[in-house]
Amino acid sequence: MVLKRSFLNKEKTMLSVTCKAPVNIAIIKYWGKRHEELILPINDSISMTLGTNELCAKTTITASEKFQHNRMWLNDEELLFEEDSRLMRCLKGVQRLAHINGSQEASLCWKVHIASRNNFPTAAGLASSAAGYACLVYSLARLYGIPLTEELTTIARQGSGSACRSLFGGFVQWHRGVLDDGSDSVAEPVASAQHWPNMHVLILVVNDERKKTSSTTGMQRSVTTSQLIQHRVDKLVPERIANLKKAIKARDFQSFAEITMKDSNQFHAIALDTYPPCVYMNDVSHAIVNFVHTYNKTTGTVHAAYTFDAGPNACIYVLKENVAKLLAAIQKVFPTDSIDTVEYLRGLAVSPESNIEKNSDGATDNSIHTTAEHRKVNGMLNVQPKNLLKYIIHTKVGDGPCQLSDDNSLLKNGLPLSH
Amino acid sequence: MVLKRSFLNKEKTMLSVTCKAPVNIAIIKYWGKRHEELILPINDSISMTLGTNELCAKTTITASEKFQHNRMWLNDEELLFEEDSRLMRCLKGVQRLAHINGSQEASLCWKVHIASRNNFPTAAGLASSAAGYACLVYSLARLYGIPLTEELTTIARQGSGSACRSLFGGFVQWHRGVLDDGSDSVAEPVASAQHWPNMHVLILVVNDERKKTSSTTGMQRSVTTSQLIQHRVDKLVPERIANLKKAIKARDFQSFAEITMKDSNQFHAIALDTYPPCVYMNDVSHAIVNFVHTYNKTTGTVHAAYTFDAGPNACIYVLKENVAKLLAAIQKVFPTDSIDTVEYLRGLAVSPESNIEKNSDGATDNSIHTTAEHRKVNGMLNVQPKNLLKYIIHTKVGDGPCQLSDDNSLLKNGLPLSH
Repeated sequence: MVLKRSFLNKEKTMLSVTCKAPVNIAIIKYWGKRHEELILPINDSISMTLGTNELCAKTTITASEKFQHNRMWLNDEELLFEEDSRLMRCLKGVQRLAHINGSQEASLCWKVHIASRNNFPTAAGLASSAAGYACLVYSLARLYGIPLTEELTTIARQGSGSACRSLFGGFVQWHRGVLDDGSDSVAEPVASAQHWPNMHVLILVVNDERKKTSSTTGMQRSVTTSQLIQHRVDKLVPERIANLKKAIKARDFQSFAEITMKDSNQFHAIALDTYPPCVYMNDVSHAIVNFVHTYNKTTGTVHAAYTFDAGPNACIYVLKENVAKLLAAIQKVFPTDSIDTVEYLRGLAVSPESNIEKNSDGATDNSIHTTAEHRKVNGMLNVQPKNLLKYIIHTKVGDGPCQLSDDNSLLKNGLPLSH
Repeated sequence: MVLKRSFLNKEKTMLSVTCKAPVNIAIIKYWGKRHEELILPINDSISMTLGTNELCAKTTITASEKFQHNRMWLNDEELLFEEDSRLMRCLKGVQRLAHINGSQEASLCWKVHIASRNNFPTAAGLASSAAGYACLVYSLARLYGIPLTEELTTIARQGSGSACRSLFGGFVQWHRGVLDDGSDSVAEPVASAQHWPNMHVLILVVNDERKKTSSTTGMQRSVTTSQLIQHRVDKLVPERIANLKKAIKARDFQSFAEITMKDSNQFHAIALDTYPPCVYMNDVSHAIVNFVHTYNKTTGTVHAAYTFDAGPNACIYVLKENVAKLLAAIQKVFPTDSIDTVEYLRGLAVSPESNIEKNSDGATDNSIHTTAEHRKVNGMLNVQPKNLLKYIIHTKVGDGPCQLSDDNSLLKNGLPLSH
């Protein structure tokens, strides 16, 4: 890797990289730390990485001997970088790794200017910090020419716990580890995005105005007060982790779906058993849960699996071939005035071929509303009031972070392009 | 007791009793059966019995040698009594006890006509079956002249589990028992209503239109699918039961309140960990939870404790001297267009003396809105949209069932008065 940076010669006074990194959605939930500062979790978790075309963080880092201070702009707002212990920990961590890896480059001493943006609104309630810290740490690694290793994931972890999982594509396990220094609390790929490429996701963004407990505060309070959390951690999660890995490896959607839904419910149960309770799902979230169970029951097989993080929005896992049917049912049950607008249905186009079904006389029928199955589904589903959903994002399993060409840079001469 | 029925002579061909029985609200929740038919619970529970002036079931039973069939009218609707196994089990159970107790009365062979009514709307979502079955079994016991014993509670239990707790006033423990025949799964008084007479309750009846899982179905599903319920039953409930009994005996409201809220939350956590999940609280319920925690935090002490059964309505425990202040805060946070109507605020009058506070110069001030504490409370509380509550019932701890005079009879010559 040091060779790749050979263009850096004594005359060069500035070095710049731009990278993007994905969002990940936990399937077995991370909830509770055994060490606050090192961000060591009390249980293993497994996530799926989402495609960066729909959701990603993008980061440019420029290092220069001329810079006086480390500076950072997040979504165009400058942060107090050098006073932010998590950011500094990531910077120092990657620099230390680069040094150990034999990097003798002058750039290690240079100050950095960093610009980072998400390509999705914060309102989506998605864990933007995971993509953001993964992108920061990955970009620093590119800058200093060091490889993506498990050790690098321990640095991302100290920025934001779940960021370590966003360093890989596909399905990723974050090991709780047992060591006090956290060096074995690493992320590790379970299967690549190419292993199960038709695993798609619909993110239903829910209208919600409530204040809610931050996940940092919530998980601290759960660890201190929930009388159920330790039982989950000791007795239930290890078996779920093993079973989920089996389901992923076998591409067994039915098992995958059931474990996913059960773990989402159990995480929210633990949050509710916290004192005072943490409530992240709302009535619309629960209406989505009911919808998914009714939909699966009516279609006679498990076509959809919900999971909810520390907020009201649903992520629904669904295989590509079932997306169009599921989406039609969602549109029916959660009607909106914005239907068919670009703003309402975002992300991947819904492939028309998934609508094609054989009807009873063997002819193909690409109208999803006229098949017997769909008449049955529509009969069972209760239509909700209008406009409960803000919008829907259609995405799928994706790869890990990657470096972008210089024309993607968010900085020019070390200052944000927008400035 | 047989002596008391000595007025029954060979000429008398009809015998009638009318009784009322209270509603009870679980503090440590009953959730899950170890035997469906005998209604044997998987854990002990403790409840508080509410005053019958505000909420009760009333039952008249007439026995006559002239009646051809056992018949029953519930809230003016006739049931298929002899096809209802739970009702027949209660009738046969009390008759068997009466026989064992040495009752030789002819009336044991007579058919019965029963009329039962609740003095509160079903919409209140309160466990009307508990009061109803307690009243049925108590009335049968009065009819046949047998005393209220623990054995009688095992008969009420087989009508509706929590009915066994409504046979006593004050605070009542229902023991899970260990025997297969359920003979040790009995209700037992922990403390009388007179032990803690200033324990009041505000029932906040919440607007809610959702279909929900019945508690019978819900608890079956929890026992089968929740991975947390057995841990609760084995490891957590026994200590909570012991601590709650201590708190009741010491009239320690702070401990009582904390255990009450934690157990309500844990019960709903278990319901959520069920697959598919059972969700009984809604957004308004959670807004009430938030309100209570904020109110307690702001007043600097625990003045209120919520508990929720298998529905969205809140029961808030509060000592008599704090009712007026709490109610004023509730009215502020949950505004209604129906304020001050008899329909909106039901039950006990709010005692004005609880409003009287000394202000800083030592003078009494009976305006609850002008004290410094209340300015502080009002500042912290977020006002909710209007009309989230249907109405409020103010009641308090009460006595067990009792017999009423004949002029309360719901039957005339064995037929409902309304017919």
